[in-house]
Amino acid sequence: AYSSGAKKVTLIPGDGIGPEISAAVQKIFTAANVPIEWEAVDVTPVRGADGKFGIPQAAIDSVNTNKIGLKGPLMTPVGKGHRSLNLALRKEFNLYANVRPCRSLEGYKTLYDNVDVVTIRENTEGEYSGIEHEIVDGVVQSIKLITEEASKRVAEYAFQYAKNNNRKKVTVVHKANIMRMSDGLFLRCVRDMAQKFPEIQFEERYLDTVCLNMVQNPGKYDVLVMPNLYGDILSDMCAGLVGGLGLTPSGNMGLNGALFESVHGTAPDIAGKDLANPTALLLSAVMMLRHMELNQYADKIERAAFETIKESKYLTGDLGGRAKCSEFTNEICSKL
Amino acid sequence: AYSSGAKKVTLIPGDGIGPEISAAVQKIFTAANVPIEWEAVDVTPVRGADGKFGIPQAAIDSVNTNKIGLKGPLMTPVGKGHRSLNLALRKEFNLYANVRPCRSLEGYKTLYDNVDVVTIRENTEGEYSGIEHEIVDGVVQSIKLITEEASKRVAEYAFQYAKNNNRKKVTVVHKANIMRMSDGLFLRCVRDMAQKFPEIQFEERYLDTVCLNMVQNPGKYDVLVMPNLYGDILSDMCAGLVGGLGLTPSGNMGLNGALFESVHGTAPDIAGKDLANPTALLLSAVMMLRHMELNQYADKIERAAFETIKESKYLTGDLGGRAKCSEFTNEICSKL
Ligand SMILES: CC(C)[C@H](C(=O)O)[C@@H](O)C(=O)O
Ligand SMILES: CC(C)[C@H](C(=O)O)[C@@H](O)C(=O)O
Repeated sequence: AYSSGAKKVTLIPGDGIGPEISAAVQKIFTAANVPIEWEAVDVTPVRGADGKFGIPQAAIDSVNTNKIGLKGPLMTPVGKGHRSLNLALRKEFNLYANVRPCRSLEGYKTLYDNVDVVTIRENTEGEYSGIEHEIVDGVVQSIKLITEEASKRVAEYAFQYAKNNNRKKVTVVHKANIMRMSDGLFLRCVRDMAQKFPEIQFEERYLDTVCLNMVQNPGKYDVLVMPNLYGDILSDMCAGLVGGLGLTPSGNMGLNGALFESVHGTAPDIAGKDLANPTALLLSAVMMLRHMELNQYADKIERAAFETIKESKYLTGDLGGRAKCSEFTNEICSKL
Repeated sequence: AYSSGAKKVTLIPGDGIGPEISAAVQKIFTAANVPIEWEAVDVTPVRGADGKFGIPQAAIDSVNTNKIGLKGPLMTPVGKGHRSLNLALRKEFNLYANVRPCRSLEGYKTLYDNVDVVTIRENTEGEYSGIEHEIVDGVVQSIKLITEEASKRVAEYAFQYAKNNNRKKVTVVHKANIMRMSDGLFLRCVRDMAQKFPEIQFEERYLDTVCLNMVQNPGKYDVLVMPNLYGDILSDMCAGLVGGLGLTPSGNMGLNGALFESVHGTAPDIAGKDLANPTALLLSAVMMLRHMELNQYADKIERAAFETIKESKYLTGDLGGRAKCSEFTNEICSKL
């Protein structure tokens, strides 16, 4: 049914509830006549010639060719030595900026109604360097690695994002009072980049202060940029303010492509039961459409999803409703 | 007026609003007939024989002799090379566990009314090791140092605290999925300690998950124990849930003594104007009294403070009132 000129998009359905919420997104995209073609791949690690487990080559090739992908939740294999597959993908595709917008949904009430922040997280280094040593028995070091290159890159992305999305302010979040050299370098890179975007307000704040202010008055913040671990924390916290990871999208921007994903878990307890909420993956797919400059489709789908949530007739269990995933999905389709 | 057998307590009034809120606490203690004697010392760094700046010997001696102290906010000297004086004190006195209870105050409404958590933070190492290098130009490493010794020590403190204070559960907060060796070691130490306290429930949670759950349902948590930086973040976040750093106490437990402090700033803009809120320092002093096993005095003073806040007739500006520091203080005294 797709035109042959349709852009191909890699789809990584993922584990647990991944396949059902991916199918839901595909159904909604079809209903909206989005001119893309899905290429589904499996990223379950396979043992390579060297005996080590790794992402299958076909999946790598697909993302590298299409330069754009959508990904459901992945299970991390249990057992020593298995690193998170999410991290492996970030590394494999050089996904250097993780972007997580959190906005209060009109239709879903939480304690906060004025959240509209975007966390932009350095996604390749920092506390996630993976470099650790045992110095002597009972004494361990983990290395937080900060480079000028990665810091500048994510800083530039943050300001460019703010500019493209009509955002007013960028806040750099740091603990340069403690980690003077590492966070100090990150801070300086963002500060320097701020000079090149005089139209965007810029402020510098300590991580602890941001955490405190965020729960009291999230309206204080707009776009936030920060090292890896701080982004992990703040993005989850902001998701909490608006209703949790089931409602918030995420995009990973890379040098050679971009991967959009829901960041909730695989929810094995409800997998296969048509009970999952596809919203986070759907909103990630909407983010992806904007990235592909398919804005009309993005707007249309987002509107239908928000309306469905607002009407609250077809909410899934996690949002306090009783609808099945398919009912929620069909309702969105019927609005398209 | 104090009996000659009164226990001596070191008082570090601090900078900015420090002296006025310290005076307020002293006044309230006098009104409550607390049997202690204050020994005020100044910790402003002085240049030593070696040319380096350091905490004056008299202050060090006072804390080492009295083994107990109360401290107002300290200004960090501006300029390169000056480390935070707060950190210098933690180091000097081996203050290995930082304890910050956050409880919803009946009299002060926030979005949350069921917060009752205690963050227990490893206070000597982790991300605060101060060990950093520039590897090559534009590539910097900061070292997160985790030792079995410090991890066990704070783990034991946390469980003992839970036991002594009739707490039900201890949650260890970590990112051992990422920092497998360092947070892994910390996690193992707490896990092992849990075995020795079978009467206390124990759970393991990721830092990002705790941040998300804390803003949605803080009632989930009780006592939390964690590495240094995570404690910095979570304690501020929890303070935010109940009204901010002006309302929350803090205690630093050391090998040879303990130092209680308010962790808000020096507020230079309102210093000397009789506008500051002494609550955080007063509640820290109350924590100190419990530590000294002067529980009746602690209870009495805490009750008077909470009542005064609840009546909300004499609230300071930060709490939305118009009272002066002295009016708030006098009201508490009149209740004693
Ligand atoms: C699953 C985990 C490795 C990951 C992280 O820590 O980055 C997750 O929390 C996230 O935020 O994407
Ligand atoms: C002032 C600063 C060095 C300190 C810290 O980072 O520990 C503060 O935020 C705290 O929590 O006591």
